Amino acid sequence: MAIRRVYGSLDSPNTLKVLAAMFEHDIDFEFVPIDIEAGENKRPEFLSMSPFGQIPVYEDGPIRQFECRGVVRSTAHEYAHRKPAGQEIICWEARKQALIANWIDVEDLKFEPAVLAVLNDNNPAAMADNHHHHQSAEANLCKVLDVYEAQLKKHKYLVMDKFTAADLLHLPNLQTLKDNPTTRSLVDARPRVSAWADEILTRPSWVKVVNMIKGC
Amino acid sequence: MAIRRVYGSLDSPNTLKVLAAMFEHDIDFEFVPIDIEAGENKRPEFLSMSPFGQIPVYEDGPIRQFECRGVVRSTAHEYAHRKPAGQEIICWEARKQALIANWIDVEDLKFEPAVLAVLNDNNPAAMADNHHHHQSAEANLCKVLDVYEAQLKKHKYLVMDKFTAADLLHLPNLQTLKDNPTTRSLVDARPRVSAWADEILTRPSWVKVVNMIKGC
Ligand SMILES: N[C@@H](CCC(=O)N[C@@H](CS)C(=O)NCC(=O)O)C(=O)O
Ligand SMILES: N[C@@H](CCC(=O)N[C@@H](CS)C(=O)NCC(=O)O)C(=O)O
Repeated sequence: MAIRRVYGSLDSPNTLKVLAAMFEHDIDFEFVPIDIEAGENKRPEFLSMSPFGQIPVYEDGPIRQFECRGVVRSTAHEYAHRKPAGQEIICWEARKQALIANWIDVEDLKFEPAVLAVLNDNNPAAMADNHHHHQSAEANLCKVLDVYEAQLKKHKYLVMDKFTAADLLHLPNLQTLKDNPTTRSLVDARPRVSAWADEILTRPSWVKVVNMIKGC
Repeated sequence: MAIRRVYGSLDSPNTLKVLAAMFEHDIDFEFVPIDIEAGENKRPEFLSMSPFGQIPVYEDGPIRQFECRGVVRSTAHEYAHRKPAGQEIICWEARKQALIANWIDVEDLKFEPAVLAVLNDNNPAAMADNHHHHQSAEANLCKVLDVYEAQLKKHKYLVMDKFTAADLLHLPNLQTLKDNPTTRSLVDARPRVSAWADEILTRPSWVKVVNMIKGC
């Protein structure tokens, strides 16, 4: 019986990041769907776990975490011993950990907001409404992806030559960019970003998340 | 001679977070002022350190970090040995680290945006412009501070009974809230938030930052 639970929704990119971390470390967990449309995330029982009423929540006995990046980071430490030596997705050496921390923050503060701005603009109503704004959301995402293209010249993955927690956090939004016909070309136009996306989107842990979404 | 450098501005809360981390661990560093008004942060030499053209940057030999929370986190690990046992501002044990990570993300994604929205609205032009929006920025900050008030019932500091990196990251914006006559009452109205703010704002490391700003 799983004592660990992930509360969230398969429509929520932040939930999917936590699920990827679960599969990445073979963590035995139960998924508890939370219906945001029905306001389940604003009920008192839920607020007692997640004071801002947001998903996901990761529960492990008495520990409840409600920030997805914190969950990814801390499970990577806690379950590192399940990975072959050298394939942990986190580092202990302070300077390497520093670089991973840096790019986790970039995902959080630059990549995700830029992607969401473009996707939001890509809904037809928003596009008709505000063509000029759309241009600038796309221009902004391109700027971010250009920084990634330069960064990926230095090593195979974002931070170093191995897959880390910083790469993992990009999976849901990268998948969405690739699945969406109007944004796919932004990834494909950048050879290193494109190769990186193709490589990490076929990782077994992420394939398990995709299968969960497909219901298989 | 300092081999470590902090590039930034004393007007930038994110720079001040990194400076607090430097003083917290007695790190020998040189402060290199960057003039944002003059566009120094968008010049090629600077962009080669900080690809998004933002301050602060922390340089330690070949390592350059441009996300302030990553710097605070990693210097806390690297220089933990300079603190008396039990007074490190970070934890190694995965679950405690998880809780610190959670509240670092709360500062980043909830506290700081809520504070900046209110301060921005508090400039007279914005207030005249948009009274309704101002109400909601203040209501939002109150909601965040209410979560903090509840959290601070559990222990003396935000995450546990000791001062951690999560508390440190709140210093610059807490100081601004306290210094601003229109926002001070939001802090003072909440007894635990108020006691916490008073306690951490008098920490020697933060007093050094304040003195640096005053030019003494
Ligand atoms: N800081 C949180 C943010 C979580 C978040 O934005 N969750 C969204 C779904 S992806 C949500 O719960 N939205 C509903 C709401 O805010 O009411 C994290 O990174 O995990
Ligand atoms: N994610 C960065 C953000 C840094 C940031 O927002 N810096 C501001 C000053 S506090 C800046 O450089 N603004 C100038 C600009 O963006 O051009 C961090 O957390 O360190």
